Amino acid sequence: MSAGAIFVWEMLGTSVLVLLGTAVVANHTLRKTLGSGSGFLFITVGWAFAVFAGASVADATGGHINPAVTFGLAVSGELPWADVPIYWAGQIVGGVLGAVLTWLAYKLQFDDHPEPEGTLGIFSTIPTIPNKVWNTVTEVIGTFILLIWILLTPTATVTEGGEPVFGNAALGYAGVSFVVLVIGTSLGGPTGYAINPARDLGPRIAYAWILPIRGKGSPQWGYSWVPVVGPLIGAGLAGLLYLAVSGLS
Amino acid sequence: MSAGAIFVWEMLGTSVLVLLGTAVVANHTLRKTLGSGSGFLFITVGWAFAVFAGASVADATGGHINPAVTFGLAVSGELPWADVPIYWAGQIVGGVLGAVLTWLAYKLQFDDHPEPEGTLGIFSTIPTIPNKVWNTVTEVIGTFILLIWILLTPTATVTEGGEPVFGNAALGYAGVSFVVLVIGTSLGGPTGYAINPARDLGPRIAYAWILPIRGKGSPQWGYSWVPVVGPLIGAGLAGLLYLAVSGLS
Amino acid sequence: MSAGAIFVWEMLGTSVLVLLGTAVVANHTLRKTLGSGSGFLFITVGWAFAVFAGASVADATGGHINPAVTFGLAVSGELPWADVPIYWAGQIVGGVLGAVLTWLAYKLQFDDHPEPEGTLGIFSTIPTIPNKVWNTVTEVIGTFILLIWILLTPTATVTEGGEPVFGNAALGYAGVSFVVLVIGTSLGGPTGYAINPARDLGPRIAYAWILPIRGKGSPQWGYSWVPVVGPLIGAGLAGLLYLAVSGLS
Amino acid sequence: MSAGAIFVWEMLGTSVLVLLGTAVVANHTLRKTLGSGSGFLFITVGWAFAVFAGASVADATGGHINPAVTFGLAVSGELPWADVPIYWAGQIVGGVLGAVLTWLAYKLQFDDHPEPEGTLGIFSTIPTIPNKVWNTVTEVIGTFILLIWILLTPTATVTEGGEPVFGNAALGYAGVSFVVLVIGTSLGGPTGYAINPARDLGPRIAYAWILPIRGKGSPQWGYSWVPVVGPLIGAGLAGLLYLAVSGLS
Repeated sequence: MSAGAIFVWEMLGTSVLVLLGTAVVANHTLRKTLGSGSGFLFITVGWAFAVFAGASVADATGGHINPAVTFGLAVSGELPWADVPIYWAGQIVGGVLGAVLTWLAYKLQFDDHPEPEGTLGIFSTIPTIPNKVWNTVTEVIGTFILLIWILLTPTATVTEGGEPVFGNAALGYAGVSFVVLVIGTSLGGPTGYAINPARDLGPRIAYAWILPIRGKGSPQWGYSWVPVVGPLIGAGLAGLLYLAVSGLS
Repeated sequence: MSAGAIFVWEMLGTSVLVLLGTAVVANHTLRKTLGSGSGFLFITVGWAFAVFAGASVADATGGHINPAVTFGLAVSGELPWADVPIYWAGQIVGGVLGAVLTWLAYKLQFDDHPEPEGTLGIFSTIPTIPNKVWNTVTEVIGTFILLIWILLTPTATVTEGGEPVFGNAALGYAGVSFVVLVIGTSLGGPTGYAINPARDLGPRIAYAWILPIRGKGSPQWGYSWVPVVGPLIGAGLAGLLYLAVSGLS
Repeated sequence: MSAGAIFVWEMLGTSVLVLLGTAVVANHTLRKTLGSGSGFLFITVGWAFAVFAGASVADATGGHINPAVTFGLAVSGELPWADVPIYWAGQIVGGVLGAVLTWLAYKLQFDDHPEPEGTLGIFSTIPTIPNKVWNTVTEVIGTFILLIWILLTPTATVTEGGEPVFGNAALGYAGVSFVVLVIGTSLGGPTGYAINPARDLGPRIAYAWILPIRGKGSPQWGYSWVPVVGPLIGAGLAGLLYLAVSGLS
Repeated sequence: MSAGAIFVWEMLGTSVLVLLGTAVVANHTLRKTLGSGSGFLFITVGWAFAVFAGASVADATGGHINPAVTFGLAVSGELPWADVPIYWAGQIVGGVLGAVLTWLAYKLQFDDHPEPEGTLGIFSTIPTIPNKVWNTVTEVIGTFILLIWILLTPTATVTEGGEPVFGNAALGYAGVSFVVLVIGTSLGGPTGYAINPARDLGPRIAYAWILPIRGKGSPQWGYSWVPVVGPLIGAGLAGLLYLAVSGLS
């Protein structure tokens, strides 16, 4: 596939992911919405099926929509390293675009919101107890789980002999949604489970430099590297574990 | 397929959709029900699987049950334009019928309800902050996501060579339910995610002219075109994007 | 299949259904449980996947576990009428058995419960506003939706030519669970969605004549025919509609 | 498969299960988390898809990740008895490891928690009304349901003749997740549904002897045999029932 096509598909898929994911937090957080105050289960359900929708849209490129997924697949030998920067570029741009779309969908609610300085949390993650080392550990563990599941569940669905492969593969992108759902319910408590650099950095860029939210707060750049580096470390570790165990029999 | 058969299948499927969808809001909104006050996650789960049930029933005609879906498929070249009015007629009539069935199922609760003037919201959408331009934008974005997912996920399930296609296609109509779930949780906050003209206009007609609810409120015709025009614009844009990107490789 | 085997499979499957279904209400209703007061979404999720578990266990006989399903299949010509009484007998006995198992699982909580006269609602349905005509209408509509979905979604999964059938069929019993989930969220408000005579009558028999709950209330026999007759009427109407439309093309 | 490979796969899968499962309870229980106080539906959703993730990771060994599953399969003749101790060893070690990972992910929240003596419930089950006989009955029933579903739902997905088998088998590990979800909602009320000795004993060992939680409470060894023995009895009974009924036709 051409570099341009990779860029477009990953940008489209990631923008769908980030739109639907940041929008569920907007629905929960802002005041005059039908889902105001719906809680963390609501948010994790939204993000889970945001992954389903976004990955489906980027199916042509494997539905990565996450730089950590791309990195983990490269480490495990499933993707050429030369493709990695193209995937990453599309994902980051898609992340910015998705955040802009969320702002457009909730424009009236943002204008009405009485505490605009607290709106960063709609777009990017904020730890409940800031501590860069331990926040990174949490992001490493969450992303490790995501990647080890992706690497061990086959996505190829018809074998060379023509016989179909069943099991999780038949679930399509619903399988990865279920895994993101449980990572959210279970490992999202301390840091909001970025587990995806583009999901966090793209909207942070949009929040800092693009979105015209009156009275908006700081983009907290000091924390911004944690949800980038943590997921990449977790994905890399999963890729290495996969290489170590995939031949076991 | 004959025009009469298209009409009947789409009418049946849409009436199932609108019955189950408006009924979950009735369950949440009315007083003497087991699900009274169950909240927005409850409502989005109900609507999501209302789509599953309704689309399954209309499987013979592709399970559109939504004029915006029909329009988007026509724009993208997947459906003859001549079929569009037949689909639309069945869908609108089904929307009216579904609303009548919800009223029958909740007849005792409607009679008991102390605030009958607030019952329009059970049947049709009402924006939390009225503003026709921005409400339309929200409906455009929500329907765009629905259609781009439908257009990019193959529904054909056996290839010409006889080899099965897996992935999302194996999920049947559960896949589109998951997408409608996340559109609800994420983009339903400002306008109640009509994303389907028949789902909104059919029940509004029933509310205005058919249902004998004592003391019922205004059908708010002034807003009624937003959940019709917005979804059609969103679907059209998705159809055009599909034509632009589907050949990318 | 022998009559004895039909009886055993349907009894097993229905007992799993009724155990898991009445137990989720026990968990919500009783005081010293981890799920006490979890609400109606919780209950509908429990009943939905109770159907998944129970129908899977009775897969050898088609996973009916519901006299209304058996009746609707007979009306539509999919099942010999001679098998109907055998299915029904297994289902009713399974319903009684499931209720006994729920009582065993929650024995300590039943003993502790301060309002034992209100425990009928754990086992059988009670309308929020008693009115036998309209309560029956609600049960008719709910069961009609269940049956029309079952009749229109193919359960055969390999065609005669050997080519697989996908779509909803690949979901197995998850599909019917999703439909039962939405019937619950949407049509369960007024009467608690029996939509299954064995699910209601079996536990009512157990409650009246078997379970040694101290201070238990009336089994409300006067209402007991509604959740039996309503579902059978709804299933019969769905069978007739299926015969009318299944040839449409 | 070699004994070492069985050990590694089951250890990995069970550690993923126990990490995600105990972490959802941590998220609900601890104070400074995004999911604090999210309730029992939230917890059951987390545990259900923890099974999905963990079983997928251990797919090479059949995704047992539960000594009761291994035991039930051996009783029913589906697994050589000689493999049982190897599975069990991997599962227990995985249970310990998963609990350590949860502590790492929530380190800051554990340090902040004002009531550290109540943290056992994050890792292992505690009955709401202690009574060893009846608590065992509840665990027997829950595990019996899990095993009878596993034994009766085929996991083989391509028949000898090459024709695919559909239905629940196409759901992959999502099917068992749905069953664990409903066991949680329905039978988790009295004892917290261990239904898995490794899920309970592994984290209890970690809590007692490894985790450096300041002021932590008793590991309640007096109760610890119930969530081990109960599940094994339930699984054994299911294996025997399976042998009795599987030939019925």
